[in-house]
Amino acid sequence: MLILQNDRHREHAGRHEMYRGRLVECVEVPERAELVLGELHRRGFARVERPAVRADMTVVESVHDLRYLAFLRQAWDHWIALDSANASFDILPSVWPNQGLRRDAPTQNFSAQVGRYAFDAGSPITRGTWDACLAGAASAIEAARRVASGSERGALVVTRPPGHHAGRDFFGGYCFLNNAALAAQTLRDAGHARVAILDVDYHHGNGTQSIFYRRADVLTVSIHGDPATEYPFYLGYADERGEGEGEGFNLNRPLPKGTAFDAWRRELDIALEAVARFGASALVVALGVDAYKADPISGFLLDSADFTTIGSLIASARLPTVFVLEGGYAVAEMGINVANVAEGFSLAG
Amino acid sequence: MLILQNDRHREHAGRHEMYRGRLVECVEVPERAELVLGELHRRGFARVERPAVRADMTVVESVHDLRYLAFLRQAWDHWIALDSANASFDILPSVWPNQGLRRDAPTQNFSAQVGRYAFDAGSPITRGTWDACLAGAASAIEAARRVASGSERGALVVTRPPGHHAGRDFFGGYCFLNNAALAAQTLRDAGHARVAILDVDYHHGNGTQSIFYRRADVLTVSIHGDPATEYPFYLGYADERGEGEGEGFNLNRPLPKGTAFDAWRRELDIALEAVARFGASALVVALGVDAYKADPISGFLLDSADFTTIGSLIASARLPTVFVLEGGYAVAEMGINVANVAEGFSLAG
Ligand SMILES: [Zn+2]
Ligand SMILES: [Zn+2]
Repeated sequence: MLILQNDRHREHAGRHEMYRGRLVECVEVPERAELVLGELHRRGFARVERPAVRADMTVVESVHDLRYLAFLRQAWDHWIALDSANASFDILPSVWPNQGLRRDAPTQNFSAQVGRYAFDAGSPITRGTWDACLAGAASAIEAARRVASGSERGALVVTRPPGHHAGRDFFGGYCFLNNAALAAQTLRDAGHARVAILDVDYHHGNGTQSIFYRRADVLTVSIHGDPATEYPFYLGYADERGEGEGEGFNLNRPLPKGTAFDAWRRELDIALEAVARFGASALVVALGVDAYKADPISGFLLDSADFTTIGSLIASARLPTVFVLEGGYAVAEMGINVANVAEGFSLAG
Repeated sequence: MLILQNDRHREHAGRHEMYRGRLVECVEVPERAELVLGELHRRGFARVERPAVRADMTVVESVHDLRYLAFLRQAWDHWIALDSANASFDILPSVWPNQGLRRDAPTQNFSAQVGRYAFDAGSPITRGTWDACLAGAASAIEAARRVASGSERGALVVTRPPGHHAGRDFFGGYCFLNNAALAAQTLRDAGHARVAILDVDYHHGNGTQSIFYRRADVLTVSIHGDPATEYPFYLGYADERGEGEGEGFNLNRPLPKGTAFDAWRRELDIALEAVARFGASALVVALGVDAYKADPISGFLLDSADFTTIGSLIASARLPTVFVLEGGYAVAEMGINVANVAEGFSLAG
């Protein structure tokens, strides 16, 4: 299995996020990727590559909105231009176009721009966010190209910030560019007529769902904590099945907080059956490992050993597969859990 | 002129608001109303009343959404039920249903409820917010009844938090219940067929506009800093003229930051002409005094003496008039500026 590593992820290191009326330390930290890479190394995954750090913008611009990309690229410079003292603080939204307001209002104000694109206050934009995201996007695109060409059966992209909460023109949930969507689009562009995205992160991949919600060529399937009680709350319900041409091509399998692996695994069977029925010729896995029992911000009860089983069950789909790192905040154990998925996939392959 | 005072405003005393990526002290403080009342007293406004502190919910529920009101009423209890340590922090939103998300999602999560109704992170809900708002609403309704009955030509409601940014089902801009809208609705219910609301606050009254945007019986007129650069950014443009039956019954007069009184006054003439042409038989003034030159968060250049002129120009409309206190954050001078409006209005009457 090919591992794609991206050192520039370190340049995205947020200081604070809003949680219950206060600013707390960010839980999505650089150490996460380092621990995953360290564990993969210990397990003997020897084929580790560092792709170019600049993504193919043709792909990025086919998944994301041009104005949104321009905003992300220039955000830090605009922030510092407001006040050089802003360098001591990350960018967080303070106002946004909720109901009754015009999202398309012709305002030039920087805070208003931030709020136009943000859906939470947990995702600080830092000096290095754009570079880190672009390098992650490059890795995801490269992984998809290697798998599409048949030169690899599986590739794992170890990068951060994660991507599955980011949509065509919005960020949130620690995500800015949607790496899984970029990988899926790359597979489509390389000739795979039908691509499936399987999201096993604890949190619903609202960004990924919304990017492909009106498309029949990319099936999106997600197993996640029920948004009735779990983040991101406002999307991820079972009745969301796609719209227009995309109707029937989105599958949400929300599960109550406290779900253990027996029940979770049955959902994975259902998800993989849907992928097979869809006739996908390639698979992207949005690999969050926050379904782990000790994850500090999640609520499923999976053990580390269960992630090995997940890897082999995914391998049983017999599809060229790109794994993209998403969430997982039990930092000490997340390396083990990701490596278990990789091992389960590789050994079953 | 009758002054209506509300002591319970003090129970709303937010600790922090988000500003440029950090939490800063609230600028909308209890001292604001106290200084206004002190100055009115010094000027000899002797008829000061304290109405009942519970508003007529029939009026409140005709302006605001029932689920939103239930949320506000129960918010603090739900907040403390999450964690008793939350008593040390005010409620601020951390996630909200921006684009791509379902505002109507059936989530029970408390943070998701907060975000459903909030459009900024500058408006903390505190232990006493609901009681303070309800007492303010009661004062606004009582003022409108006294003016409607003909027993008073003018009444000034000195209360806080302000109201003009609050809509039927949203809060923001330090506002939770829309006192000006409640006064206007009360005047309508008392038989005034056509009521006008004139908003002279520096910031566009987006809540008031949206409440009456589809109605022809209440004209909304606002003179304010151009939302292209000024808060609330996403509403308040000149091309917003009302919708459906309300088309033609909303007038926005945005002015660039840095506007002085000469130009401002010409806009007031235009606004008062619109009120006269509309045929209003009663007027509500959303009285922010943050157009003052030294206001810390605003950008017009009005002098204190200009507020006296504003009061007499409004009196020249010869309409029963309810003034409701909105913004104004040059705390030391705001008492003078509000009293100047009251004096200008009374002496011209
Ligand atoms: Zn997650
Ligand atoms: Zn204001």
